[in-house]
Amino acid sequence: MNYRLYIQYDGSRYEGWQRQERTDNTIQGKIETVLGRMVEAEVEIDGAGRTDAGVHALEQVANVHLEKRMALEKLQAYLNQYLPDDIGVMKVEVASERFHSRLNAKGKIYQYRILMNGRKNVFERKYMYLLEESLDVEAMQKAAQYLVGEHDFKSFCANTRMKKSSVRRIDRIDLTVENDDLKITYEGNGFLYKMIRILTGTLMEVGLGERSPESVKEALEAKSRNAAGVTAPAKGLTLVKVIY
Amino acid sequence: MNYRLYIQYDGSRYEGWQRQERTDNTIQGKIETVLGRMVEAEVEIDGAGRTDAGVHALEQVANVHLEKRMALEKLQAYLNQYLPDDIGVMKVEVASERFHSRLNAKGKIYQYRILMNGRKNVFERKYMYLLEESLDVEAMQKAAQYLVGEHDFKSFCANTRMKKSSVRRIDRIDLTVENDDLKITYEGNGFLYKMIRILTGTLMEVGLGERSPESVKEALEAKSRNAAGVTAPAKGLTLVKVIY
Repeated sequence: MNYRLYIQYDGSRYEGWQRQERTDNTIQGKIETVLGRMVEAEVEIDGAGRTDAGVHALEQVANVHLEKRMALEKLQAYLNQYLPDDIGVMKVEVASERFHSRLNAKGKIYQYRILMNGRKNVFERKYMYLLEESLDVEAMQKAAQYLVGEHDFKSFCANTRMKKSSVRRIDRIDLTVENDDLKITYEGNGFLYKMIRILTGTLMEVGLGERSPESVKEALEAKSRNAAGVTAPAKGLTLVKVIY
Repeated sequence: MNYRLYIQYDGSRYEGWQRQERTDNTIQGKIETVLGRMVEAEVEIDGAGRTDAGVHALEQVANVHLEKRMALEKLQAYLNQYLPDDIGVMKVEVASERFHSRLNAKGKIYQYRILMNGRKNVFERKYMYLLEESLDVEAMQKAAQYLVGEHDFKSFCANTRMKKSSVRRIDRIDLTVENDDLKITYEGNGFLYKMIRILTGTLMEVGLGERSPESVKEALEAKSRNAAGVTAPAKGLTLVKVIY
């Protein structure tokens, strides 16, 4: 039986989504451990987005094949009971046998939040990047338009030795501001390693007046990581939704 | 000059609002220390609600008399820069000389949140009480109506030796549920020591079927702490607004 899990997490204290040899402090690892204990077997779950250390998820999707047939509510309740407070299973569904959370994903929505002007947000502080300065959002909007569409995002990929294609399609980049709380929403068919954080860091440099909106177009064309801006901190980033 | 501060805090790691001799880990204490450093004098701030250890505030109001005349934005920026991340000053205004945040308050709104049925809310988990069980919200609503109005709330006060009047007026108790997230909103002209947490604990006992809605009326009439229910945990409670 193939099960589809909708997972939420506060990534603050984890080494990212993906299971690793050198640490058991990953979100995938935590879920596999609890699930494995429940079904008394080794299990492997696949997540749609391999979020980095410190990145959060509002609705990550994962799937897992289990030999036993389980009541969905029981599966969810067990996971929620034994997983730590900062990882939650919001829903469990039966998926078709061939469903693969990552390979079948048509797109993803991520959001990056920046709280500007030294403002404070006590209750959401762990999910936003706190910036002393103000940002020129109009300039950032202009810059963002160069990034929308299908492009080779090699300049915006932290893995400089990547051999596979770095062509991706960004469907939209929306910027909204309310009370100095800037939300940048990215929707696209896939994102390279640290791509959204590099896109955000580059847009931030535009917003600070350190580079022109047009320079983002040049960065894209340069196909070199050095042409893009800094990598924005992980804590401001949240995987919002996986689209199928 | 009398300044009025709007303050937000995550009360999780503090010993409550009020300054104490035995600890410097109070919200009032933290603000007074930073403010005192700024104006190079000893300062005393008055808060409208003396929230307990672990209780949060979305909009606490305090006032402070300062000899120096200060730019409001500068005052706010200084406080936000030197206060910890979990205490924020959202706004600063000039108040009339005679304004006193607590004595002039006409009422207060508090909210208690309970997440039922073993559900999880990763991002707001620190601001809600997590309950494995389900609650009969209709029964709780019925019980709540006995509490609305002007009553002697002696049974719902943790200070059993209180000599002053324990008569208070509750204007409304609203219960709303969405996805097992129960929000109980209390509005009244003032609340006794731990009164909202005892009211909530009592309503929870009704919701669990451990006592009848009518027993709440009896508890009120008994004028004895033993007649009411348990004290609900602090983490679920937030001071939402002070009304003037």
